[in-house]
Amino acid sequence: MTTGTPQVLIDGLQYCNWSRAIFEEMRQGGLTAVHATVGYHEGFRETVRHLVDWRTRFRDNEDLILLARDAGDIERARASNRTAILLGLQNPMPIEDDIGLIEMLFDLGIRFMQLTYNNQSLLGCGWMEKEDSGVTRMGREAIAEMNRLGMIIDLSHAGERTALETIALSQRPVVVSHANPRWLRDSNRNVSKVLLQALRAKEGLLGLSLYPLHLPNGSDTTLEQFGKMAAEAAGIMGADHLGIGSDLCQDQPDSVVRWMREGRWTREIQATASFPPQPSWFRSNLDFPKLSQGLLSAGFAEAETALVLGGAWHRFLKASLPSAPGYAGNGQIGAR
Amino acid sequence: MTTGTPQVLIDGLQYCNWSRAIFEEMRQGGLTAVHATVGYHEGFRETVRHLVDWRTRFRDNEDLILLARDAGDIERARASNRTAILLGLQNPMPIEDDIGLIEMLFDLGIRFMQLTYNNQSLLGCGWMEKEDSGVTRMGREAIAEMNRLGMIIDLSHAGERTALETIALSQRPVVVSHANPRWLRDSNRNVSKVLLQALRAKEGLLGLSLYPLHLPNGSDTTLEQFGKMAAEAAGIMGADHLGIGSDLCQDQPDSVVRWMREGRWTREIQATASFPPQPSWFRSNLDFPKLSQGLLSAGFAEAETALVLGGAWHRFLKASLPSAPGYAGNGQIGAR
Repeated sequence: MTTGTPQVLIDGLQYCNWSRAIFEEMRQGGLTAVHATVGYHEGFRETVRHLVDWRTRFRDNEDLILLARDAGDIERARASNRTAILLGLQNPMPIEDDIGLIEMLFDLGIRFMQLTYNNQSLLGCGWMEKEDSGVTRMGREAIAEMNRLGMIIDLSHAGERTALETIALSQRPVVVSHANPRWLRDSNRNVSKVLLQALRAKEGLLGLSLYPLHLPNGSDTTLEQFGKMAAEAAGIMGADHLGIGSDLCQDQPDSVVRWMREGRWTREIQATASFPPQPSWFRSNLDFPKLSQGLLSAGFAEAETALVLGGAWHRFLKASLPSAPGYAGNGQIGAR
Repeated sequence: MTTGTPQVLIDGLQYCNWSRAIFEEMRQGGLTAVHATVGYHEGFRETVRHLVDWRTRFRDNEDLILLARDAGDIERARASNRTAILLGLQNPMPIEDDIGLIEMLFDLGIRFMQLTYNNQSLLGCGWMEKEDSGVTRMGREAIAEMNRLGMIIDLSHAGERTALETIALSQRPVVVSHANPRWLRDSNRNVSKVLLQALRAKEGLLGLSLYPLHLPNGSDTTLEQFGKMAAEAAGIMGADHLGIGSDLCQDQPDSVVRWMREGRWTREIQATASFPPQPSWFRSNLDFPKLSQGLLSAGFAEAETALVLGGAWHRFLKASLPSAPGYAGNGQIGAR
């Protein structure tokens, strides 16, 4: 980094093959908080099993990470030089067709949920369907329930109509945790100007993705090109509603790409069956602070850089997450 | 009641057909707290569905009841003239064979769990098996996990050997939430002197049952006979380790007795297939304060009566339940 370290670094999405080595890199990279994906196509019971695994990770690595249930936990992480982990779902499969499971999963620590993942879901439509029929009847209920609880609605992987309708319906600001401006990389997985304008008008946040297929020049995208892309996004969102959602999938075997794409809903191979190479300048949490170079080179002021690398996410999370000050460390209520 | 109302009335076990009418009676009876059974033979997913139903009850009746996650919630209930509901399981089926589910259920509000219900379980042996082989390998793990979390171990319905071994293994005091002295009603469902002595030696608590099949003279047991029975129990436990666990099953259809006895584990009818009539002096929460008459007539001092009707449970719960002061009302974290 060429300038002073931003106080708060937050990554709005990762799905790594979690290990102590990765948590150590989060600390070395100075990450204050990371939104970690718990699952994609798992039902309720399997998701709970993943949450049990997370509790074990929190206990085994309590010197490095803690479960963040609210903004106070993020402050506790800062004060104790640890990384706060916010848990989220990239698909609403875990709630099955039971609206009550949203509250159950919230109580178990889930703080983000996407309404769709590529395909049509019970709640709305993903970007890969031919036709997006918008938010469903249950989708409206889920939006209201997530608003009630303070679970953050994530529109990554949603179809444009579903995303726009959700923004209009939600009583709270929503996010696109990991995507880039579509006009710089033409994929419906990325977000249009219209969508970004609607997101910003309702105080939402965009997390910029570092996943090669979302970047203007794929794996060969330079840090400067990333900075320019961020500047385009900031032109609509402002630096105070812009963050990073790296989509880092470190140490994952290629079978995980197939799991993401195919789940259990198809017998056919869906497109690329391997992870593309990361840009040379972003391969792990160690590289997170380097992003400031790209932003500064694109004309961001130092204070704006601090916002994009974590300040905007921090403000958003403080405003969005209900307070649960009684939780003790590592997501263990009343640990003794 | 012949004397002043005890400050704290607590019932250590009920499994009513829950309704607003019953919650209103809890208030009219002056119940500070009630331990409510969530289920018997249900697996994890079905139990979570019951917990969702409880959340709905808490919201629909928030003027009468609240979910108690810790002792502070009991104080909140007192301060707002409501009844604190502590949720529990009479069988460990909901944890399946997954030790991690104990923590998940704790987070969702479960504060009591029996290790067995009549039959052999994965954790230990119930009182109706011919042979009690004691606490199992997983049972030891579950005891340690419940101790770690602060989930209260309930030995009602356990076999004697399993109960004695659990008392010896547990690092925290345990309870028999609803049973009576066996020497006054000869059923292995009731508790022996040896068991009560072991329970008391480890600071455990006995909740006296009002279920006719546990009472000295069945449905015809008088309030005075109940008082004498309580005095016998107090001779071992002391009034400060003695409470009520009425086992009230108000408004339940007889099919529920069959569910309790037979679950899904048999095709045969198991014993009586209907609820016996309650004693005339204990038919609902309205009758709870009347119990003081029976206790006073048996020679309990007024302060001792107050202990048995709630003071002892209150002390036990304050000492046992980990503090979670950040929870907002009705079990809804951060309700706004």
